[in-house]
Amino acid sequence: MGLLMSVDVAVVGATGLVGEALVELLDECDFPLGNLHLLASGESAGKSVPFRGRNLRVRDLAGFDFSSVRLAFFAAGADVVREHAPRATAAGCSLVDLSGSVAGPLLLPALEAGAVAALTLPAQLRAPCAPAAEVAEVLAALSPLLDIQRLAVTACLSASQLGREGIQELARQTTELLNARPVEPRLIDRQYAFNMLGQVGAADASGHTAIERRLHDELGELFPQLKGQLQVSCLLAPVFFGDALNLSLRAVAPIDLEAVCAALENAEGIELVEDDYPTVIGDALGQERIYVGRVRKGLGDPCELNLWIASDNVRKGSALNAVNLGALLIKHYL
Amino acid sequence: MGLLMSVDVAVVGATGLVGEALVELLDECDFPLGNLHLLASGESAGKSVPFRGRNLRVRDLAGFDFSSVRLAFFAAGADVVREHAPRATAAGCSLVDLSGSVAGPLLLPALEAGAVAALTLPAQLRAPCAPAAEVAEVLAALSPLLDIQRLAVTACLSASQLGREGIQELARQTTELLNARPVEPRLIDRQYAFNMLGQVGAADASGHTAIERRLHDELGELFPQLKGQLQVSCLLAPVFFGDALNLSLRAVAPIDLEAVCAALENAEGIELVEDDYPTVIGDALGQERIYVGRVRKGLGDPCELNLWIASDNVRKGSALNAVNLGALLIKHYL
Ligand SMILES: NC(=O)c1ccc[n+]([C@@H]2O[C@H](COP(=O)([O-])OP(=O)(O)OC[C@H]3O[C@@H](n4cnc5c(N)ncnc54)[C@H](OP(=O)(O)O)[C@@H]3O)[C@@H](O)[C@H]2O)c1
Ligand SMILES: NC(=O)c1ccc[n+]([C@@H]2O[C@H](COP(=O)([O-])OP(=O)(O)OC[C@H]3O[C@@H](n4cnc5c(N)ncnc54)[C@H](OP(=O)(O)O)[C@@H]3O)[C@@H](O)[C@H]2O)c1
Repeated sequence: MGLLMSVDVAVVGATGLVGEALVELLDECDFPLGNLHLLASGESAGKSVPFRGRNLRVRDLAGFDFSSVRLAFFAAGADVVREHAPRATAAGCSLVDLSGSVAGPLLLPALEAGAVAALTLPAQLRAPCAPAAEVAEVLAALSPLLDIQRLAVTACLSASQLGREGIQELARQTTELLNARPVEPRLIDRQYAFNMLGQVGAADASGHTAIERRLHDELGELFPQLKGQLQVSCLLAPVFFGDALNLSLRAVAPIDLEAVCAALENAEGIELVEDDYPTVIGDALGQERIYVGRVRKGLGDPCELNLWIASDNVRKGSALNAVNLGALLIKHYL
Repeated sequence: MGLLMSVDVAVVGATGLVGEALVELLDECDFPLGNLHLLASGESAGKSVPFRGRNLRVRDLAGFDFSSVRLAFFAAGADVVREHAPRATAAGCSLVDLSGSVAGPLLLPALEAGAVAALTLPAQLRAPCAPAAEVAEVLAALSPLLDIQRLAVTACLSASQLGREGIQELARQTTELLNARPVEPRLIDRQYAFNMLGQVGAADASGHTAIERRLHDELGELFPQLKGQLQVSCLLAPVFFGDALNLSLRAVAPIDLEAVCAALENAEGIELVEDDYPTVIGDALGQERIYVGRVRKGLGDPCELNLWIASDNVRKGSALNAVNLGALLIKHYL
């Protein structure tokens, strides 16, 4: 991207977990960046964030004029995005949304870079949620090989799924417990420290949570051939960082395990771990690949394939895909 | 059982997590107990355990004469059971094994109390491992209703799955981390505190662990109609107690959710939680029922059913079933 014109960029939600990772990646990678504007709520306005040897001031999103940038990353909650994304679009600013709430196409850079060819400006692109992006990278590697009949994803998400406040809640509850004080639930309505939670946030009338719907629907959008065949459950593990995903699928024909491993080995965004299993803390944290291990057939069915994914949901699962989508937009359009 | 003759009983592994729970249940419940012998390794010999107002001395298993009891519970590791169970049988002592390693029939009291009618003495009964017992109670309630085509179980097990040493390992690692000391892995070869592990113990050449095989095979034994249709993954969550299980199944016909809930509601060993989700710490710990919640259909498939189980693996999943099998043996044979 070295020869591209540089583009002025805004990051909405720059003080959040994902926004902070976005800013780090924009700094580290070869992104054609002009001026960078950091936006958050009024409460954060005035904070300063070090960036390339200078201090950038965080500004209030509410007063920001989007006509001063050509591209904005929206890494805030869905309600904030729904309120402010239309302002960006009206000002001619293209955007990459990480909350799953704009109307534009859902794109995963690893999957379908070609699809950016059909956009009109200002563009609204949706980046998948982290678990969808992570599962999709595996499916992209495997779907040329396997005719998948059914896929069950059990996602053990972490406190970071709930943003910075989630991390704080787990830290506070853990400290209270270890000091033998009664646990006082705040963000989460029960003991979360040292307790597996079977649900992430509220469930709707049919019993599903927002993240389960998003994971299910985004996988169905990215792989239309799997619609109606995707089983999705999201759990909340008492860990601070990362996604830990268990995938169990059934193909129409017996699994060729060597071919599966070769396909995973060759996928750029995947680190295949053989004869051991990766974990978030030991392997994935801070990395730009997902870690896949425990690739194995079923115990009773030769058409069954199981595997395990450890990934840095914030950096790899969210921010990196968004930055790459932004770079694609710039390359082809801006 | 008040009118039954009381029977002298031995507990092998009485100082372990499961053995301790067995002794507690023998104390609390209406078990026709004569003398109780507590057995463990030579290292524990001489320790004393309070029981019904007296102190019982733990004795070395190696020197114990099984002809002095009619029934023994084997709650030690598989290697210990394989070495000493034949001595019990040779001495005419019936036994209930919790390690899954004797040759006798696998029985779950909730499921098939009738099957004890075909035993010869001295009997060797196998109690299922905790996750198998827990899933089996749900399947027992649902299988009259549903023609199950496929069942995927993702079991998030706890430190207690590794026995008393597992609990100590998680406690030690957690303390080290919170005191900002480097984590020194011992029982587990990596950071376990605040880290989801994708595997419980070593995997065999085909990639499966012993607990996955045991869960898979025992469910297939208890429900032969499900053989070849069971997908099983066991993960290790950084929590001290309990099993947290995610079940996803596909039936041949669309799910009648009301009928499913009614069947779960009516099952004696199950507490159905509606409009909320149970957890181990908040609900299941110390209880004699499994807690089932998040009963919901699929997002894209009317034949799909998902649910979540929280259970006290030591008390409810292991010790209670063993004690009930022992009581059945006494009632019908001893
Ligand atoms: N965490 C993940 O694993 C993950 C994965 C995929 C996608 N996402 C999505 O990424 C987005 C951000 O997640 P996160 O984990 O970074 O959350 P977070 O840590 O809670 O950060 C939220 C950000 O939004 C800002 N914000 C809140 N209210 C605002 C308002 N009224 N006006 C302007 N800014 C406001 C916050 O600013 P203040 O600091 O001023 O409050 C903060 O910068 C969410 O849509 C989430 O669904 C997250
Ligand atoms: N934990 C669970 O969730 C669970 C669930 C289902 C089934 N089980 C099964 O139950 C059994 C016990 O599990 P646990 O969790 O209670 O393990 P644990 O806490 O490690 O206890 C092991 C017990 O075995 C005794 N033992 C060890 N080596 C011995 C030897 N050479 N001779 C005599 N006794 C010996 C120990 O005595 P010392 O104290 O003297 O070492 C201790 O009493 C295992 O087979 C396990 O697979 C466990």
